Amino acid sequence: MTAANEVMPIGAAGEKAQHAARLALPPGEATAAQQQSSKRGSLLSGVICINILILGCAMVCSSVFSPDAVSPVNVQILLSVLLLLTTAWMVYYMAYVARLDKAVLYKDGHAGPVWLRGGLVLFGVCSLIMDVFKIANYVGYMHCDSAVKIVFPAVQALFILVQTYLLWFHAKDCAQLQRNITRCGLMLCLASNLIVWMTAVTEESQHQTVIPKSDHAAGDNNRVFPPVSGNKEGECNCSHTACSIFKEAYYYLYPFNIEYSLFASAMAYVMWKNVGRLVDQHAHHKHRFRLKGILVGPVVGVAMLVAGLATFVIYEVDMAMDDKEKKELALKIHYLMNTVAVSLMSVAALIGYAIYWLDKRDHVSEKNPTRSLDIGLLLGSSLGQFLICYFNMVAIVASSATDVLNALNLACSLLTIIQIILQNVFVIEGLHREPFNEDHEGHVFANPHALHSNQETHQPSTMRRSTSVVIITTGMHVPVTLGPCWKRRLLKEISIFLLLCNVILWIMPAFGARPQFDNELGFRFYDYSTWSAVVNIGLPFGIFYRMHSVASLFEVFLIT
Amino acid sequence: MTAANEVMPIGAAGEKAQHAARLALPPGEATAAQQQSSKRGSLLSGVICINILILGCAMVCSSVFSPDAVSPVNVQILLSVLLLLTTAWMVYYMAYVARLDKAVLYKDGHAGPVWLRGGLVLFGVCSLIMDVFKIANYVGYMHCDSAVKIVFPAVQALFILVQTYLLWFHAKDCAQLQRNITRCGLMLCLASNLIVWMTAVTEESQHQTVIPKSDHAAGDNNRVFPPVSGNKEGECNCSHTACSIFKEAYYYLYPFNIEYSLFASAMAYVMWKNVGRLVDQHAHHKHRFRLKGILVGPVVGVAMLVAGLATFVIYEVDMAMDDKEKKELALKIHYLMNTVAVSLMSVAALIGYAIYWLDKRDHVSEKNPTRSLDIGLLLGSSLGQFLICYFNMVAIVASSATDVLNALNLACSLLTIIQIILQNVFVIEGLHREPFNEDHEGHVFANPHALHSNQETHQPSTMRRSTSVVIITTGMHVPVTLGPCWKRRLLKEISIFLLLCNVILWIMPAFGARPQFDNELGFRFYDYSTWSAVVNIGLPFGIFYRMHSVASLFEVFLIT
Repeated sequence: MTAANEVMPIGAAGEKAQHAARLALPPGEATAAQQQSSKRGSLLSGVICINILILGCAMVCSSVFSPDAVSPVNVQILLSVLLLLTTAWMVYYMAYVARLDKAVLYKDGHAGPVWLRGGLVLFGVCSLIMDVFKIANYVGYMHCDSAVKIVFPAVQALFILVQTYLLWFHAKDCAQLQRNITRCGLMLCLASNLIVWMTAVTEESQHQTVIPKSDHAAGDNNRVFPPVSGNKEGECNCSHTACSIFKEAYYYLYPFNIEYSLFASAMAYVMWKNVGRLVDQHAHHKHRFRLKGILVGPVVGVAMLVAGLATFVIYEVDMAMDDKEKKELALKIHYLMNTVAVSLMSVAALIGYAIYWLDKRDHVSEKNPTRSLDIGLLLGSSLGQFLICYFNMVAIVASSATDVLNALNLACSLLTIIQIILQNVFVIEGLHREPFNEDHEGHVFANPHALHSNQETHQPSTMRRSTSVVIITTGMHVPVTLGPCWKRRLLKEISIFLLLCNVILWIMPAFGARPQFDNELGFRFYDYSTWSAVVNIGLPFGIFYRMHSVASLFEVFLIT
Repeated sequence: MTAANEVMPIGAAGEKAQHAARLALPPGEATAAQQQSSKRGSLLSGVICINILILGCAMVCSSVFSPDAVSPVNVQILLSVLLLLTTAWMVYYMAYVARLDKAVLYKDGHAGPVWLRGGLVLFGVCSLIMDVFKIANYVGYMHCDSAVKIVFPAVQALFILVQTYLLWFHAKDCAQLQRNITRCGLMLCLASNLIVWMTAVTEESQHQTVIPKSDHAAGDNNRVFPPVSGNKEGECNCSHTACSIFKEAYYYLYPFNIEYSLFASAMAYVMWKNVGRLVDQHAHHKHRFRLKGILVGPVVGVAMLVAGLATFVIYEVDMAMDDKEKKELALKIHYLMNTVAVSLMSVAALIGYAIYWLDKRDHVSEKNPTRSLDIGLLLGSSLGQFLICYFNMVAIVASSATDVLNALNLACSLLTIIQIILQNVFVIEGLHREPFNEDHEGHVFANPHALHSNQETHQPSTMRRSTSVVIITTGMHVPVTLGPCWKRRLLKEISIFLLLCNVILWIMPAFGARPQFDNELGFRFYDYSTWSAVVNIGLPFGIFYRMHSVASLFEVFLIT
């Protein structure tokens, strides 16, 4: 198991020294001129990204409000060009790195963790299937609709394949050569993903809008999947019979594509931040995952997980039926389950934070850009859930809905906000503490005499601390407890409990539970498109937040 | 004239040393525990700010989409509570600082520059007048409308008075005591201002929406200022005759209120960043403003300024008439003027950047948080203009408008984007260079022997540089030119020219030129509310950007 700041140098130390000499700088430092060049490169790539993004935003808005002037086909042409450019750069980058083994001398072990790459592949596969379905669907309209509608999914599929390959194998790269080209390429990649994300969110929101709008692109606006597609005023009919099935299927896969774009954006951004970084190697921790002595947290957590899975299955089954009463019951159970989960999690996080207050363990003082970035992503992605919860709360309070269903909904939203705040505080505090047992393993205690003297010198000082329990064992591995044992155990229990709860809170929205749409309050209260935009923007961030929390809590568990 | 990093220590050095001793740290450094406490405080205040903001956002959205459930009066009640809370904190802060003169030991001389404070007072006065007009208007509806509509402007007026006073006198404070309370107060202040900004943008956008929407709050949606107000379905009539005048007048003052909120937000954010900062005093530069030897830049700049003012007057006069042809002509002149201005500015910025490439002057290597923040604000505020320009360009290209008017509009938008990018690059490069003449004034040359030896030691090294022109004069003040004279002069010419052009580009939108609305393409192409939202969000940022650019270019001029 790897944690915090692990660094994987490539090649021998001599090679790196050579490289550093060639760059005329000691490892870990950069000259003023290079810093300046970095700043220029970052600025340039940032300018490119912003311009592409705002252009894309304007195009997407135009395609919504003036579908006659800017049709979805125009947006797809722009996107295809962008995706092809990005793909070309990605292929170039991989070829360049493969040819010159000095292009990447350092790897940031913390970047592109396995959960992120795993999620990327999972969502990437779903996106590929979506593209295949799209192509199959539009082949039926080829005789009367634009060929771009087939070309675009094909280009997107190619892009997803190449990008997933790149991010799987190169997410940890700290590129050293051709830095500015790499920066611009990565920013192009980021911008492309964000425009794909914007387009997908817009299409999904239009799709969920039940009220038919005659002046919008027809066919995408009705929730009942009409067999007619495109914006040709219904005159273009599908030439094969499977069209409606493909269409229904690929709409179910949209959320995965939205999620894929977010994951890829986050990874591209981290890679961009790492370009030219010379990772310092002194902080090299290894922690092992051990559940020994930890019982309550995992047990309660697994219980929550099972209960959550059960309610999720009930929810999905009941929602598929047409019985209104069953639907309401399923919603009630869902809200109740969520309310209980977030209440317990809030209490656990609060206790954890209180222990950190009592615990006098040192704070990590050194600057760690990867960790700051990680925390920034955690805080940023939590905004999505906040957005949905506050919009929900305002809708319930303002419409004075006093039935049990909405009371539960209100409680759930309010507690979710509290839970997220407390959990963020707990995770941040946990990540900023020095690991237990650090610097006390192995190297000193290999010598029995050293161990003996260590016992002598340590005992008086530990005796002075009245609350601490010191366990001294003999042998190669001596855990010198820096804080009292019960605190540490409790923190581990809490982290593992929170981790398991976050897993279930991730599973439910990621695999299709949409109480925000099934409970019609939001649609009734807000405009249809506003509410679906809020949920479609907020929910993918919420899913990302839960996955990220799981990873961060795992790290807190290892550090503790 | 003050520049860059000026610091104004308060009280004697002894007092500061005492304070540092009391805080148990050397000036300029903070202990790990304090850093941790700072981080906690920042996190807490950030969480408060984000929650208030998202709640406000949800309320504003609800008042737009469900005016029956969440009326504008509800939003005003929330805002009144927020503004009263913020006002209470501001009064407390000022009283506390006045009582304890150790609460603020350092002042950041770069924060709250005079242009920002001046702008704040100007826009504050306009906002106050707006509030008075609002109160006068709603007094006429008191017999049949909510009293909150009178209370809210009164509370807002009080808030503006107190906040302007606070920001005028305390914008430079680096608060040292009660840091976390101060952080939370400032974030409350920031959140309040941003919600006021959101509300004002929404009201202004609804107001500019000409198409009457029956389900929205009536009266606010028509551009022709009907004498009926409020959302009482037209049954509530004004009891005095001046209502319509007041109403028309206060709508003209809305943009100033939007601008005021932005300025106050920026200043509150800078103050928040400065809480607990121990400003290091070694970078204490004084630069004098001198135009000696600079001619072309000021002359061309003043010519542009006069031409701009002339076209602005023509524009405003023609727009007030009902003649369609005159309006079109005025628009053409406006676009032509802008196109010429931004073209010249782009060329100037490009030349300036080329000179910086040639110039080998050192880059400032030390970290300077105030400067980073400044550059961040510059880049951030330029996004507003980008937004408008890209939306404009997409609308023109997609609607295939080929007339002269829209060709000029397109050229103007495109060149504005290029100009902003080049100017940003020029300003950033300029601000990152070491000032000319640094460390060579006064203190060494006061002694004639030292001067003599200095001449001897300097001459050989300067002789080696073939391109440099060295002018050595005798006396107390010896400007040792680090770069060749012509480069420096040219940079000064360029900065002053860009500065003057930015002034005119600021004056036009700030005092009412709205070609985006007068040219009806945007309204026709996008949805009415979308286009007015884009312009109402983008334009205030654009105005802020121009003012900020003027200040930054002035600094570049002084450093050069």
